[in-house]
Amino acid sequence: MPRTPEANQRIREAQRAKILESARSVFARKGMEATITDIAAEAQISLGLAYRYFADKEAIFSELVKQTVPDDSAGFQKLVEMPGTPGERLATLISSIVGARGQREPLEAHQLLHHALNANAMPEEIRELLGKRYQMLLATMRQLIVEGQATGEVAPGDPDQLVAVMSACLDGLTRWALRDPEQFRTYVPDAQIVLRLFQPLTDEKKASEQS
Amino acid sequence: MPRTPEANQRIREAQRAKILESARSVFARKGMEATITDIAAEAQISLGLAYRYFADKEAIFSELVKQTVPDDSAGFQKLVEMPGTPGERLATLISSIVGARGQREPLEAHQLLHHALNANAMPEEIRELLGKRYQMLLATMRQLIVEGQATGEVAPGDPDQLVAVMSACLDGLTRWALRDPEQFRTYVPDAQIVLRLFQPLTDEKKASEQS
Repeated sequence: MPRTPEANQRIREAQRAKILESARSVFARKGMEATITDIAAEAQISLGLAYRYFADKEAIFSELVKQTVPDDSAGFQKLVEMPGTPGERLATLISSIVGARGQREPLEAHQLLHHALNANAMPEEIRELLGKRYQMLLATMRQLIVEGQATGEVAPGDPDQLVAVMSACLDGLTRWALRDPEQFRTYVPDAQIVLRLFQPLTDEKKASEQS
Repeated sequence: MPRTPEANQRIREAQRAKILESARSVFARKGMEATITDIAAEAQISLGLAYRYFADKEAIFSELVKQTVPDDSAGFQKLVEMPGTPGERLATLISSIVGARGQREPLEAHQLLHHALNANAMPEEIRELLGKRYQMLLATMRQLIVEGQATGEVAPGDPDQLVAVMSACLDGLTRWALRDPEQFRTYVPDAQIVLRLFQPLTDEKKASEQS
């Protein structure tokens, strides 16, 4: 009995997913030097079959990055509108970023991006996507900082400077997580330390600085 | 009149210094792809003359790194023994690191190291020197943190964790300074923000976290 068109479609989708999954681990292991031959071998399919699904390695890579970096504008919007004080929402945002660095899966995804950026092998379309998403993260952070300064939960000062210092620190933490995931996981739970970057001075300290 | 041996010595030293200075700007511009030919051209001397002072590019590079990363053990020791509270000495240490990133000269030196590390072109001897110096910095920081926790100036918690988070943040700041020195300089003066990573909670906040 011949297969129905629906069954064929399911098989194609499963095949495609399998190639992407294999590619993810090959890229994580070999970086941008991975070839489509490596990916086909990992997926235990022929090279010819791999080419029926993707035109080249770059197409596979682009698809992976799109899966990894979902369009999160809705997520940021939800965060801004969440109940709780601005300081609490800021804590949620930073904790989720720091926490994600300690988990295996988002970390591998990050490793993938890191490889691509370092190898200057990032397709333009993907580079734009990432840039947009990063800008959205910074804008969300900035908005919560400004609101948090109004409630007194966030230290006063130029919000752009606070955003810049925090994002540099998050960058440093990410690089640490990529370099030594085991060590990072031992330390990671404490996003509270990172959040102190936004913390207003104690009254005692304020007095001693003014004196 | 023939030149005296002293005069010859002076000329040789000036020549050597000129080669090193030229090499510094060539390495800063071209990274580890710079050749000894580039360096000779920059110094406006012949290639043959350059080779009379240095066996190869690596020898020039090693010398530059040694100049850049002085043996600072005495400096760290002095800092630990400085008058003032541990919190104040910690502030001096962190401010001097953050401040240095905003200055052109130490930044160029850092750029040099960064190039070499990325290109895996760091001679073993220099790699060890850098590793030692970095460990000494971390040990100094750790000691001041422990002392600062005893005086209540530094937030309680695992000192190794505090050292790790601070050094990740400093790493992120350094990368930012290397990527965009102009933007960094606009923001740099505020080491106070970075120092908040060590700041104890306000009494108010402490109370709300315990509730």
